[in-house]
Amino acid sequence: MRKKVTLKQLAKELNLSISTVSKSLKNDPEISDKTINRVHELANFYNYKPNALAVSLKSNKTKTIGIILPEILNHFFAKALFGIEKEASKSGYKIVTCITNESYQKEVEYVEMLNYSSVDGFIVALSQETQVLNKFDHYQVLKRDNVPVVMFDRVSDEIDCDKVIVDDKVASKNAIQYLIDTGCKKIAVITTISDLSVAKLRLEGAREVVNENDQVSLIELAVKDTIIELSVDDANNVEKEIEEFLKNNDIDAVLGLDETAAAITINMSHKLGYKIPKDISVIGFTDGLLSKHSYPKLTTVSQHAEELGAKAAQILLNQLDHFVENYKTKTEVVKTSLIQRDSTN
Amino acid sequence: MRKKVTLKQLAKELNLSISTVSKSLKNDPEISDKTINRVHELANFYNYKPNALAVSLKSNKTKTIGIILPEILNHFFAKALFGIEKEASKSGYKIVTCITNESYQKEVEYVEMLNYSSVDGFIVALSQETQVLNKFDHYQVLKRDNVPVVMFDRVSDEIDCDKVIVDDKVASKNAIQYLIDTGCKKIAVITTISDLSVAKLRLEGAREVVNENDQVSLIELAVKDTIIELSVDDANNVEKEIEEFLKNNDIDAVLGLDETAAAITINMSHKLGYKIPKDISVIGFTDGLLSKHSYPKLTTVSQHAEELGAKAAQILLNQLDHFVENYKTKTEVVKTSLIQRDSTN
Repeated sequence: MRKKVTLKQLAKELNLSISTVSKSLKNDPEISDKTINRVHELANFYNYKPNALAVSLKSNKTKTIGIILPEILNHFFAKALFGIEKEASKSGYKIVTCITNESYQKEVEYVEMLNYSSVDGFIVALSQETQVLNKFDHYQVLKRDNVPVVMFDRVSDEIDCDKVIVDDKVASKNAIQYLIDTGCKKIAVITTISDLSVAKLRLEGAREVVNENDQVSLIELAVKDTIIELSVDDANNVEKEIEEFLKNNDIDAVLGLDETAAAITINMSHKLGYKIPKDISVIGFTDGLLSKHSYPKLTTVSQHAEELGAKAAQILLNQLDHFVENYKTKTEVVKTSLIQRDSTN
Repeated sequence: MRKKVTLKQLAKELNLSISTVSKSLKNDPEISDKTINRVHELANFYNYKPNALAVSLKSNKTKTIGIILPEILNHFFAKALFGIEKEASKSGYKIVTCITNESYQKEVEYVEMLNYSSVDGFIVALSQETQVLNKFDHYQVLKRDNVPVVMFDRVSDEIDCDKVIVDDKVASKNAIQYLIDTGCKKIAVITTISDLSVAKLRLEGAREVVNENDQVSLIELAVKDTIIELSVDDANNVEKEIEEFLKNNDIDAVLGLDETAAAITINMSHKLGYKIPKDISVIGFTDGLLSKHSYPKLTTVSQHAEELGAKAAQILLNQLDHFVENYKTKTEVVKTSLIQRDSTN
């Protein structure tokens, strides 16, 4: 559909060699002014564009960062992207984002495409499928090309690159400890993302704290995965499952390992007539929209998504600006914090 | 940081002319096999990459669509992007997304950059600043280059391109009519996005219906713009303003012109001890996360964001596959629907 004119077509029409046209476009002193002018005139007429890479080669930089995200319906990644954008923007970098929708194949294609269009570096959160398949060859190519990569949140030990993560286990331990400190003894852990590594770490943390406390019991519920947005039917089933769970178990606190689990717990408690936090204390993960707009407002583990994104961008920009031979990669841990709102005592 | 080798450097090291190296890389029969092999060997050694545009020129297509979105923290645009991605993916197209954060300057830069990297077409929702400045020169360039553009949701009459919109005025009229039909007489309209054209259309629709009904009164509240995510302080102020408004006005229904306004109305009603929908019926716009996870569940105008995105992608893909001389642009209206949940009678 787009009508492009090639160097060859310009050369043919001008009755010049391709090399002469190419030199003329670069105002090469070898070529006469008259010819240079003729070439520029026709090139302008056809709106001939010198190719992007050739231009970028001048400075060896495109001032563009490629972002690979697993999904965008999750507010956490949207916020991380917001943080990346703000930080990169300060340094005059552009951001190009590709969404894998949790697909390994798409991740491979997008990494290749962005590398091909010569982004200066990558910020990546791995797709669920890539984590399950444990295949990372597509990142080896970037290493070979000396293109720096920073991974955040969804990372892998098998890739040697800078990483920014939150300590999900510690975060979960702190949340459970807070529930215990405020008098809760029969704690439930509910998750709708049991497949993900982050959920497993959070569950581990919860178990460890409870195991150390004889007075405290733990009960666990893992409902259907909600990684990609739920259909209405699915959502209703998740609600029903959580409602039944709350009705049939004698508990005084819920730690939702994801925001959805916590939000649904609050709504089903309303439905069952339980008072929050009088009857049940609730803590969630991810300080997203649902936490801010639940009633009562949700006490939540903030993973500081925006800060996480900004930190990843800072590390990448620093690498881009200061090339270090035999660079040693590092993993930074962004501290989580428990934001105390109204759903706990 | 990335070490790139140029044609010139290859030529110098091989002691050949640039043109010979270039021809060798294309296996030009003019050049001897021996030279071709030498060139390929060194090019491989340095991982020399032919430029992306040159490759794409072969087919005149990059099979890539550029998306320009005003923001990503808004679930509506995230869902539209999800719809675009799904549709484009079916046809084997890749999606590259740039976020303007409501900035005119960024919109100009991203349109230029994506055009420069030869995306086959654009799907755009205008930034707030672009709408306010009413400056659209950056889209003229695409027209000149024969790059098709489809705009959705945030569009302008001054750009001649395909558009996909929802009829915000009709949607709002239907919502108000529903409130009247279910016995409401003292209706408030609350918005936190009064700056946007869509909010103005929604307000117009509400006023028209109320004006036709002598029995019904309308009261309006526009609070601080929440286009970019609110800070906690800002959010608290918005809540306080809406709480005061609900306390000081005798109303039996609220139409929130955006999801945030409706969600806060529900929470402040809880706080004030008003029962929903017994004391106040509430309808919101945008069937996003907040609507699904509010308590009681929000009756809402669904703008079918995913469908809107998919429709925009279909129109663009159709243009890319079937080039029509003197193409006449069109505007498609995606119907909204009122999803009746538990916040209305």
